[in-house]
Amino acid sequence: MVNDAVYPVEPWQVREPALEMDRLGQSESVLALGNGHIGLRANLDEGEPHVIAGTYLNGFYEQRPLPYPEGGYGYPEQGQTVVNVTDGKLIRLMVDDEPFHVAHGRLHAHDRVLDLRDGVLRRSVDWESPAGRRVRIRSTRLVSFTQRAVAAIDYEVEALDHEVRITVQSSLVANEKQPQPSSDPRVAAALDRPLAAVGQDTEQHGAVLLHRTRASKLLMGAGMDHVVDAPGDYDEETDVREDWARTTFVTVLQPGQRLRITKFLGYAWSSSRSPEAVRDQVAGALTGAGYAGWDGLAAEQRAYLDEFWDSADVEIDGDPVLQQAVRFSLFHVLQAGARAERRAIGAKGLTGPGYDGHAFWDTEGFVLPLLTYIAPHAAADALRWRHSILEQARHRARTLGLAGAAFPWRTIRGEECSAYWPAGTAALHLNAVIARAVDRYREVTGDESLEQDCGLDMLVETARLWVSHGHHDADGVWHVDGVTGPDEYSAVADDNLFTNLMAARNLRAAVAACARRPEAADRLGVGPDETDAWLAAAEAVHVPVNERLGVHEQSAGFTRYAPWDFAAEHPGEPLMLHAPYFQLYRRQVIKQADVVLAMHWCSDEFTAEQKARNVDYYERITVRDSSLSACTQSVLCAEVGHLELAHDYASEAALVDLRDLHDNAQHGLHLASLAGAWSSIVEGFGGLRERGAVLTLAPRLPEGITGLRFRLRHSGRRLLVEADHDTVRVTLRDDSGGRFPFRLYDEPVEAAAGEPVQRPVVAFKPLLPQPQQPPGYAPERA
Amino acid sequence: MVNDAVYPVEPWQVREPALEMDRLGQSESVLALGNGHIGLRANLDEGEPHVIAGTYLNGFYEQRPLPYPEGGYGYPEQGQTVVNVTDGKLIRLMVDDEPFHVAHGRLHAHDRVLDLRDGVLRRSVDWESPAGRRVRIRSTRLVSFTQRAVAAIDYEVEALDHEVRITVQSSLVANEKQPQPSSDPRVAAALDRPLAAVGQDTEQHGAVLLHRTRASKLLMGAGMDHVVDAPGDYDEETDVREDWARTTFVTVLQPGQRLRITKFLGYAWSSSRSPEAVRDQVAGALTGAGYAGWDGLAAEQRAYLDEFWDSADVEIDGDPVLQQAVRFSLFHVLQAGARAERRAIGAKGLTGPGYDGHAFWDTEGFVLPLLTYIAPHAAADALRWRHSILEQARHRARTLGLAGAAFPWRTIRGEECSAYWPAGTAALHLNAVIARAVDRYREVTGDESLEQDCGLDMLVETARLWVSHGHHDADGVWHVDGVTGPDEYSAVADDNLFTNLMAARNLRAAVAACARRPEAADRLGVGPDETDAWLAAAEAVHVPVNERLGVHEQSAGFTRYAPWDFAAEHPGEPLMLHAPYFQLYRRQVIKQADVVLAMHWCSDEFTAEQKARNVDYYERITVRDSSLSACTQSVLCAEVGHLELAHDYASEAALVDLRDLHDNAQHGLHLASLAGAWSSIVEGFGGLRERGAVLTLAPRLPEGITGLRFRLRHSGRRLLVEADHDTVRVTLRDDSGGRFPFRLYDEPVEAAAGEPVQRPVVAFKPLLPQPQQPPGYAPERA
Repeated sequence: MVNDAVYPVEPWQVREPALEMDRLGQSESVLALGNGHIGLRANLDEGEPHVIAGTYLNGFYEQRPLPYPEGGYGYPEQGQTVVNVTDGKLIRLMVDDEPFHVAHGRLHAHDRVLDLRDGVLRRSVDWESPAGRRVRIRSTRLVSFTQRAVAAIDYEVEALDHEVRITVQSSLVANEKQPQPSSDPRVAAALDRPLAAVGQDTEQHGAVLLHRTRASKLLMGAGMDHVVDAPGDYDEETDVREDWARTTFVTVLQPGQRLRITKFLGYAWSSSRSPEAVRDQVAGALTGAGYAGWDGLAAEQRAYLDEFWDSADVEIDGDPVLQQAVRFSLFHVLQAGARAERRAIGAKGLTGPGYDGHAFWDTEGFVLPLLTYIAPHAAADALRWRHSILEQARHRARTLGLAGAAFPWRTIRGEECSAYWPAGTAALHLNAVIARAVDRYREVTGDESLEQDCGLDMLVETARLWVSHGHHDADGVWHVDGVTGPDEYSAVADDNLFTNLMAARNLRAAVAACARRPEAADRLGVGPDETDAWLAAAEAVHVPVNERLGVHEQSAGFTRYAPWDFAAEHPGEPLMLHAPYFQLYRRQVIKQADVVLAMHWCSDEFTAEQKARNVDYYERITVRDSSLSACTQSVLCAEVGHLELAHDYASEAALVDLRDLHDNAQHGLHLASLAGAWSSIVEGFGGLRERGAVLTLAPRLPEGITGLRFRLRHSGRRLLVEADHDTVRVTLRDDSGGRFPFRLYDEPVEAAAGEPVQRPVVAFKPLLPQPQQPPGYAPERA
Repeated sequence: MVNDAVYPVEPWQVREPALEMDRLGQSESVLALGNGHIGLRANLDEGEPHVIAGTYLNGFYEQRPLPYPEGGYGYPEQGQTVVNVTDGKLIRLMVDDEPFHVAHGRLHAHDRVLDLRDGVLRRSVDWESPAGRRVRIRSTRLVSFTQRAVAAIDYEVEALDHEVRITVQSSLVANEKQPQPSSDPRVAAALDRPLAAVGQDTEQHGAVLLHRTRASKLLMGAGMDHVVDAPGDYDEETDVREDWARTTFVTVLQPGQRLRITKFLGYAWSSSRSPEAVRDQVAGALTGAGYAGWDGLAAEQRAYLDEFWDSADVEIDGDPVLQQAVRFSLFHVLQAGARAERRAIGAKGLTGPGYDGHAFWDTEGFVLPLLTYIAPHAAADALRWRHSILEQARHRARTLGLAGAAFPWRTIRGEECSAYWPAGTAALHLNAVIARAVDRYREVTGDESLEQDCGLDMLVETARLWVSHGHHDADGVWHVDGVTGPDEYSAVADDNLFTNLMAARNLRAAVAACARRPEAADRLGVGPDETDAWLAAAEAVHVPVNERLGVHEQSAGFTRYAPWDFAAEHPGEPLMLHAPYFQLYRRQVIKQADVVLAMHWCSDEFTAEQKARNVDYYERITVRDSSLSACTQSVLCAEVGHLELAHDYASEAALVDLRDLHDNAQHGLHLASLAGAWSSIVEGFGGLRERGAVLTLAPRLPEGITGLRFRLRHSGRRLLVEADHDTVRVTLRDDSGGRFPFRLYDEPVEAAAGEPVQRPVVAFKPLLPQPQQPPGYAPERA
């Protein structure tokens, strides 16, 4: 499944050494910049050619109808789709009379670098026009981590061998033409000209455009301003229309002379404020950017990232491919979440229009575990976003005939947008996944404020959901029927193991939180009868097991289903493109980890032997047609001792986009898989787990990784964990806060400043030999 | 659930004594005429007002897109929708300058009668124009049973009290404006003005219009011709345009004088023939109709129906409401199937556009059992239609990854048109229902030709479907997983009892048919290994039982599900309008008979005690939101001794449209429920069953029915069964054919010409008291 490398293996950057047209879309995503608020795909400065032009603002979407040929009660009628907003990335260049275009004239060199420490995308071009005029272009682009509403481009053109007339047209363009929608349901529906002009102005050395979406009625503003450094005279003029603004600079350069233009971009949007207020917000952002200047913005960016890497970096000795991939992953997860600030972190971040820009359970399930350890403020913000849509979730629960809150399977603004209920509404587990993230945030960070402000609400309302949907049978056993677990090649099944265990965990967490905050619980109307009912359900939860096979069942009766005929399949393509759900749902074939995910997230509910046997059973029938699988398989394979297989899966998770393993990186990056790559390494090879608030570690490295060092935050302290094949050392990096108790290979230990804990690696013999995957589905290491 | 009567209770007709605007749509369906080839809704002659204008040709449809907000492999992309074809019913009248309209002027009397013996719809109107001119209009309409392509209207207008100028405009109109078919603009567009003009001609005293559907490319022709009987001079002229033709007659009538116009209508359509051929076919139909003349057509119609009633009538003493309803039912089932001739019998016949005009399992499951006993040629034709779509069914099975043939859940032309797979594709049982109808036809009629010509194909291909979808577990037990049974408030469940038993029956029937026809089986590639596998599956089929409760399970685990909270519901409205499938599918609430239907159709698989206990259990959770339920509940309630409840259900089944119990009769009649009413009476109170080819009877009447007489055909012989509360008599009505062996209350007996079998009624004490239905769901007798 691993394609050839497009980007050379380097520790701190992702470099595209040449422009390959069939990788253009992938690079637009891979080299994308963002800060969680603004996202810029790595479209070329001159705009063309492109696969998908993309500029996104977190939370800014258009509504679209969801037409059902056969409708049903409770089906969402309106979808939400991320909008490609006014494009400010555009800087077109004319060399004498010739527009610069990579496919015309002669491209002597073209190189782009995503710098993971500087947080910029650098481009260097050596181009000769069809008329024989040669120029060098250097552009550097950033989306500021420190000024949320600001992006900037430093653009420089140099004449190389002749005097040339240089014309630079810097633009804002709304309603760019987008690609046609695909028949593949995963590809976002394209929206035609979603932005209606509201107003436009020239400003200083630029302009501001205001637009409103036609159906969702969201207002946005985009502005640009410029600073010019020219060796001689130049002319400047600005033109503005409803859907575009253009500032043009013209000058003449002698060989060796350079024209440098710094373009500042400011964005703002609102569902309620006036056009005037939004216009002023844009202008204010531009003023702030101009005050810092290019050098100031770049310096702030580097400082922000230095601090990030200092407490987030993962170092891998012996596998430079994985080293690069995990830093790439951490960088993009940061870009998705850093300044999301109570807006959603979508499955693709702000890197592309895939999945309509929706946020799924991916956020709480895969992205927040990582952010909780390396950027806890971003995790808290994401959970506060969840809380901000609690009213919609309550309303959705009522629609479904349930109590409490039913969070949406996919959404931007909070309303359920899933148009296929067996894989949306029925995936009730996401509510327990949210509850887990709430609880985990408190346990890992020690920060009680989230639970106090809004976490308790979410724990209580999800607990209410579970008891209203589940029921006790005649023997008192508690069941959750007719739900869909993580594996999307099953649906609407009874007693999905993952769902049952996660629901029980949700219920227990709600009971404990109410006990911690009796007054707040009382305000929410939670009395002892209610918490007793939650506990009774959790304690009576059904755990489906096939005693004869000695394995847990993914759901009731799963291991009795017919086997899947893997031989008949189309290798390399998802089964769902060649088989109907009718067949997939009731055969023993698994799209993505489900029991195996339960063993990761509800680790204490399984014995070591059960884990080994379950991994062995489910490995043989899992096809990983979802990018949410390899990381989890990696963690559990590591735990049961299949370290080489774990290494393969870690590679697959980390390389999903760098190697385009699902052949759709052009629609945006797979944030959950990228975050999962961190889990593969830190939770898999590092053996990191929690028992309540107690951190536990149990590093064991595969052969190909000779050393591993990772940093994280826990209880407000910063830790460094170092391991090789012989020794583990855990260092507390902060002076304050006293001793840090944790568990290392199940031994209770304590670290203190200047007193690292060091132990020999504890060997582990796997119970079973390394299992086979279905024919053609074995992972390959890069 | 029983509304007030609109139509007075009379034994041989359905009369609408006045025009009630809120019942207009219901009457358009209830008083509709058809012969299985042409269907005319009971729109007023003058066209307006109407709820749904409807003229249908069996098999004539337009394609339309099925747009999915989230698609999936194997989802049908094109739907088929019955088209309102060129309307020939229109006869507009002007009295002096005033167009006749029931809502203008003064309607002194308005009366319509559907005559079940004459097979005509008669209308009588006494109207005074706003200008004070009073006329009487009498029109009689028929769709000929003897001339398939012909309909006719005998229209007479009489001046009552003044000299008046009478203008009669008799028309053909294509593309009448219809109610919006869908909120989806693409679907609405496809069905807006579906007919494109191909040609038009005046002919004799009328015209012919030719049109073609835009997407399905079906060609149709409609023609009209007229015979006029006027007391004096009259003028006639014909005008033709692309979408209409109009023949106008004008004359002056003195009080007491009458103008009589007979309008003959001819229809034809084809997917392959030329416009010229279709035009000639229409003209030929008109010539044939003119040759018979109105009186000839009416006499043929009466003779056809006399013969029908002679071997189909059901007489009920003591319940005149049910008497009328069952004759109404028999008449409409005949109208739907009489001349369908290898085209589908749709769920609504040709009485309205409901369900897009599709045929479902209703046909084989509910309509053919009746036709097999009273109009076997129509049953055979319907099954030959099924065979005509075997290739599409084979292709569908391949799409689903299955062997054999998977017949469509809903279709007109053969392609699957169901856009919600859990209640379409997953309802695999329909294939076994088709196989049962094939087998039952042979057993009841003794006619081997159907099996020989095409029945074996269908038995073999459906058997292949079952073994490819089902599987043997580790203990050898055979399961059918992930299917939807008859009850649509459950879906995608394992081991649905009905499906399992019907599949086993299908497999055994295929084995037996191959044994009867070894050479034909050989030609189909069926060897002993294959039939052994079929038998092995049938013999190992899983029968889910809850031993503790002593009842069969609707599907695996069903009786363990949570109860439904009936108290929370909206009485009188289907649950599915207020609850999501997500909730309905995994609770103990049943839309329609499922286990109970299994006990009807697979009667010998259950003991008497099991039947009693299952009825008792499932009655308490069945809400009958489907019209396919009451008839089956009636049959089983009768069998287990709840005769009064059975009587209530029989009423409900028979009155579904006469009393508009589902509040949707305006979209067309519920053919399966109407046919089911016959089952309620003949199979319920008459106790008719088959053991293989042996007819068994066991009459037991409820208190309110003092006598029951029904006629049927079996093995080519005609029988009369007469029962009251004391005595049963069975008479063989044909001289030829020797003795007729059958079973009466399990006693083997024989009837012969002139030697009826007479026995006392055998009393039966129910095992359990009469069960309760969910609150608010008890049936009411009219």
